[in-house]
Amino acid sequence: MKRILLAHGGGGEETRNLINEVFQKHLSNPVLDSLEDSAIVSMSTEKIAFTTDSFTVFPPFFNGGDIGKLAVAGTVNDLSVMGARPGYLSAGFIIEEGFPYDDLEKIVKSMKQEATLSDVMIITGDTKVMPRGHLNGILINTSGIGEVVYEGLSASNLAKGDRIIISGTIGDHGACILAVREGIDFELGIGSDCQALWKLIEKILNTGADLHAMRDPTRGGLAGVLTEWSDQSDVEIEILEQEIPVKDAVKGTCELLGLEPAHLASEGRVVIAVREKDADKVIEVLQTHPSGKEARIIGSVIASGEGRVILKSSYNTRRIMEPPSGELLPRIC
Amino acid sequence: MKRILLAHGGGGEETRNLINEVFQKHLSNPVLDSLEDSAIVSMSTEKIAFTTDSFTVFPPFFNGGDIGKLAVAGTVNDLSVMGARPGYLSAGFIIEEGFPYDDLEKIVKSMKQEATLSDVMIITGDTKVMPRGHLNGILINTSGIGEVVYEGLSASNLAKGDRIIISGTIGDHGACILAVREGIDFELGIGSDCQALWKLIEKILNTGADLHAMRDPTRGGLAGVLTEWSDQSDVEIEILEQEIPVKDAVKGTCELLGLEPAHLASEGRVVIAVREKDADKVIEVLQTHPSGKEARIIGSVIASGEGRVILKSSYNTRRIMEPPSGELLPRIC
Repeated sequence: MKRILLAHGGGGEETRNLINEVFQKHLSNPVLDSLEDSAIVSMSTEKIAFTTDSFTVFPPFFNGGDIGKLAVAGTVNDLSVMGARPGYLSAGFIIEEGFPYDDLEKIVKSMKQEATLSDVMIITGDTKVMPRGHLNGILINTSGIGEVVYEGLSASNLAKGDRIIISGTIGDHGACILAVREGIDFELGIGSDCQALWKLIEKILNTGADLHAMRDPTRGGLAGVLTEWSDQSDVEIEILEQEIPVKDAVKGTCELLGLEPAHLASEGRVVIAVREKDADKVIEVLQTHPSGKEARIIGSVIASGEGRVILKSSYNTRRIMEPPSGELLPRIC
Repeated sequence: MKRILLAHGGGGEETRNLINEVFQKHLSNPVLDSLEDSAIVSMSTEKIAFTTDSFTVFPPFFNGGDIGKLAVAGTVNDLSVMGARPGYLSAGFIIEEGFPYDDLEKIVKSMKQEATLSDVMIITGDTKVMPRGHLNGILINTSGIGEVVYEGLSASNLAKGDRIIISGTIGDHGACILAVREGIDFELGIGSDCQALWKLIEKILNTGADLHAMRDPTRGGLAGVLTEWSDQSDVEIEILEQEIPVKDAVKGTCELLGLEPAHLASEGRVVIAVREKDADKVIEVLQTHPSGKEARIIGSVIASGEGRVILKSSYNTRRIMEPPSGELLPRIC
């Protein structure tokens, strides 16, 4: 089996071969192909969104995706939730010596596929190879730039009356990775929700709804997003527990392992805070798109002046929704 | 000693503490401080340069710098050599569980220091923690965006008559890292040349000289840059061996270890191809700047139609300057 060698990261002949045989073969476009020290592009606006994320997920292949798909989707989503049309991505690969060459190619192919779904181009990259034992597997950093098309979305922008919407079930990605690691994935058949959301979010931006904040609940999960919003906007958010969509298999995994679904990462969902009057319009648009079929309103902002998130059960008991803390799950995304 | 824990990468409370205590403490600026999923900035032009690089250097602290300084300088330089004024950087940290907290803080401080020298802001970031044994030490990815202020610099743009200039001695960074690893650094006292070159390159761009290409000779060294230029521009470059500035200690390290100085990485030098008539003007400007004092013309483009680099010795013998190949030096940058 052909494997990645230290020489592939040396900047010499072997690096050039790797670029030709894998990166250019699958990602080719005129900007990337120029292979200069920086990629040069024309943006159609001067207001630019810029973001970065490193992906360390282990194992790199999982039900519903792989580290390449995740790396593209994650950065596309981080631009999208800030109201930016994702334009261009960078890809920085850090690979352990001995990593299978074919696996790298599979990963790059799924990056291309996921990027194409959002009309995004990967235009600049970098590859480093770490000696065997200095790294376990493969890491990918993607950074991205996009044009801001909707201004004002911010974690500090929530106001009393806002409705809180989630675009689908929570925790699928986290539960999927956990299940593989615990060896219980075949029984449960959980797939990651990992997907780029730009096409869905574009539709929401185009509704004309008065959107206050959007975020993808990755590390830290739904509870992490809501806690941050309540803190930064200084508002009390009330969430109706029975309205949070969670797959049975995800619930089961959580019960087995003593975890909260609201702490698990999703990689293809968006949480939205929108003015009350526009909430139904947003739900309607979400539900007509395959990625938002299970969208629903899960709560609202009920007061301002004190930042906290209240979880209300179907028996009308109320408790604080705690943000995740402690060790959690390394290499989940 | 306080150490990095898995929880610092979990996206919960400990991650927020790390952001406050280290990243915001040293890198604070209004865009970074908003802590949204993407940073939003206004560029003053629609022509944008975008680049990415991952830094894996080992050890992370060395004579003349550390991985933080290197990560900022490297990306600033990749923008600068394409004629772009560096504007904004992202920083993606991947850290091994157990890494000393104070060392991370030192690294972040030197990132800030190096960024300030080029009037660059770090506006978005990400931190992942890998379980002990999954990674050796710390890795940093920096991506950067800048405004193109000088167009047309390209590896495929060299023409007959062009002069080839180097801004200073070659191989200092590579030799420095090697010497530490081989335990011969105290004898030789080699320091890395690692530095951001924007302020120097800005002066060159402002001379009005007809510049054809610029590149920083990092991985692959001077030989790597020249080979790529000769290939892509399909020209024959002749380099006068005795004109290449190399420190005695770097020569010594190379002799000891059987390496070529022209294959070793520099991290604070720029190679320039400029029209013959403007070469002296560029040299003059370089030499008045502390980072370019030892600048000199080391050769020229002598023919077109066949891509190769000829090294001419002081005895007038001529041989091909070979690009680096094989294993070279993992984790040199």
